[in-house]
Amino acid sequence: MKIVTLAGGVGGAKLVDGLAKILSPEELSVIVNTGDDFEYLSLRISPDLDTVCYTLAGLANPDTGWGRAQETWQTFEEIGRIGGPDWFRLGDLDLATHLVRTTRLQAGETLSEITVDLCQDWGVVHPVFPMSDDPVRTIVHTETGEALGFQEYFVHQACQPVVRSFEFRGIEEAKPITKAVDALAACDLVLFSPSNPWVSIDPILAVPGLRELISAKPVVVVSPLVGGKALKGPAAKMYQELGLTPNAFEVARHYQDLITGFVFDLCDQEELEKIERCRIIPLVTDIVMKNKQDRVRLAEEILKFCGQILNRSR
Amino acid sequence: MKIVTLAGGVGGAKLVDGLAKILSPEELSVIVNTGDDFEYLSLRISPDLDTVCYTLAGLANPDTGWGRAQETWQTFEEIGRIGGPDWFRLGDLDLATHLVRTTRLQAGETLSEITVDLCQDWGVVHPVFPMSDDPVRTIVHTETGEALGFQEYFVHQACQPVVRSFEFRGIEEAKPITKAVDALAACDLVLFSPSNPWVSIDPILAVPGLRELISAKPVVVVSPLVGGKALKGPAAKMYQELGLTPNAFEVARHYQDLITGFVFDLCDQEELEKIERCRIIPLVTDIVMKNKQDRVRLAEEILKFCGQILNRSR
Repeated sequence: MKIVTLAGGVGGAKLVDGLAKILSPEELSVIVNTGDDFEYLSLRISPDLDTVCYTLAGLANPDTGWGRAQETWQTFEEIGRIGGPDWFRLGDLDLATHLVRTTRLQAGETLSEITVDLCQDWGVVHPVFPMSDDPVRTIVHTETGEALGFQEYFVHQACQPVVRSFEFRGIEEAKPITKAVDALAACDLVLFSPSNPWVSIDPILAVPGLRELISAKPVVVVSPLVGGKALKGPAAKMYQELGLTPNAFEVARHYQDLITGFVFDLCDQEELEKIERCRIIPLVTDIVMKNKQDRVRLAEEILKFCGQILNRSR
Repeated sequence: MKIVTLAGGVGGAKLVDGLAKILSPEELSVIVNTGDDFEYLSLRISPDLDTVCYTLAGLANPDTGWGRAQETWQTFEEIGRIGGPDWFRLGDLDLATHLVRTTRLQAGETLSEITVDLCQDWGVVHPVFPMSDDPVRTIVHTETGEALGFQEYFVHQACQPVVRSFEFRGIEEAKPITKAVDALAACDLVLFSPSNPWVSIDPILAVPGLRELISAKPVVVVSPLVGGKALKGPAAKMYQELGLTPNAFEVARHYQDLITGFVFDLCDQEELEKIERCRIIPLVTDIVMKNKQDRVRLAEEILKFCGQILNRSR
């Protein structure tokens, strides 16, 4: 069984990590959101890409889910002392990634080429693709009429502004990575990891060509909401601000033209009937990943579920 | 007595530090070579400017003379592990300077504006001016016909290539800093600190307008050569490769249309007669600065000498 997973940040990375413990590099590849990428301190930062790669490499900070384990903050603290921007925390080890990536991008290499090399250096064996080598910037339009870059909204303003809509600036000109297109064409099933639908999965789906390729495959979605709340990040708050109920059913409905199977939490069992009525195949289980064992356990359950879906469709 | 000092890297910085212990910010300002500046790891690095500022701030590494004291190397070592360039060592504290400077330059601020702010943060009270806000790049032309950027020659190739000539690329378009011009116009005397004539002092003199301003003042030169050797760097090797004898007399002769007084080492006493024959006023003393006391002692002697020169010319 060949699977392509779409992933955003922390939640997506955890599930991908569980899957990678079971599937070979031929069986699993990952397409990562780059709409969160931004320029900061003269560096190009790719937060979701780094979270996925650091997690797969076993280098991620276990407490935060993002950034590096055993990190130090010498440069960052000194930047604060000399009046530099300090709203987005960059550790010393993490900085090495951004410096090398920015240097190589400025020399004309592509994000996907650089990611291949970094993954090799980090010991990541599964293919990890940015959704595009072309710059796409997720813009959050707020109720005050402001247009905020995603990290400005997410980190600097701590998701306080009320959201009205999202824009993926540059998406029309963004080309998908050829190898990601090949992986999608060759896969048996596409898995949407438990990432924010609006700002992690939607940007990937909006890259010209990707939605069409994905719609030709069975799609299994893992809910990022549990009991009406996001385990991390502003997904539930966004649903509310957009006039929607933050629950599993709304997540499934978000992907209604694509979704084949839906994995959601036991505590949302009451939504089962509504979901089945939409002809979505359900898997109700404990989807909260508190530790590394949970990641593998959930990945195993999801893969079994995916196998059942593929058998049905044959 | 108002003095403007021209300075390159380590040797110049030491003397400036000694002078700064005696003279007030109204009495001493420094114009620093920026021909050594370069782009590295996507950052704009200004090695001489940082050496002078770190030294004045008491932040310089006492062992190397450049870089920061109590430095750590987390980012730099990680960069090596992921295949980034590692021939120019950047410590974690030092990186903060380069990141903030590069960010502000990219935002359209000038090097001199940024330097003012950094000096304030570091507690440097004497005015420190880059020779220009416009990019000038010292190029070393070698006997093999190669044209090497200065740091490529100096650090990466460890001064091994044989030098044929120097070029200050961009110098025709480089404008001096207005406040540096004002300081030069208002000063009583210009002091060339013990820096490399070819690649530290000459670039400053080549900035359009500066040589003319300097030539209107008494100029005191401190020899960077002692006993035919440079205390640091390739000055002596350059003299030889350019077909000149590396000695104090040749340093004085290098500045022959500008020089009023010349400070050189006791061990070069034998050159006194030749130097006096050129109508240069000599100060023969111990010019080697091994510790902070030496810096102040030499600065005091030089200031006394400068005072005598000014009295003579009245």
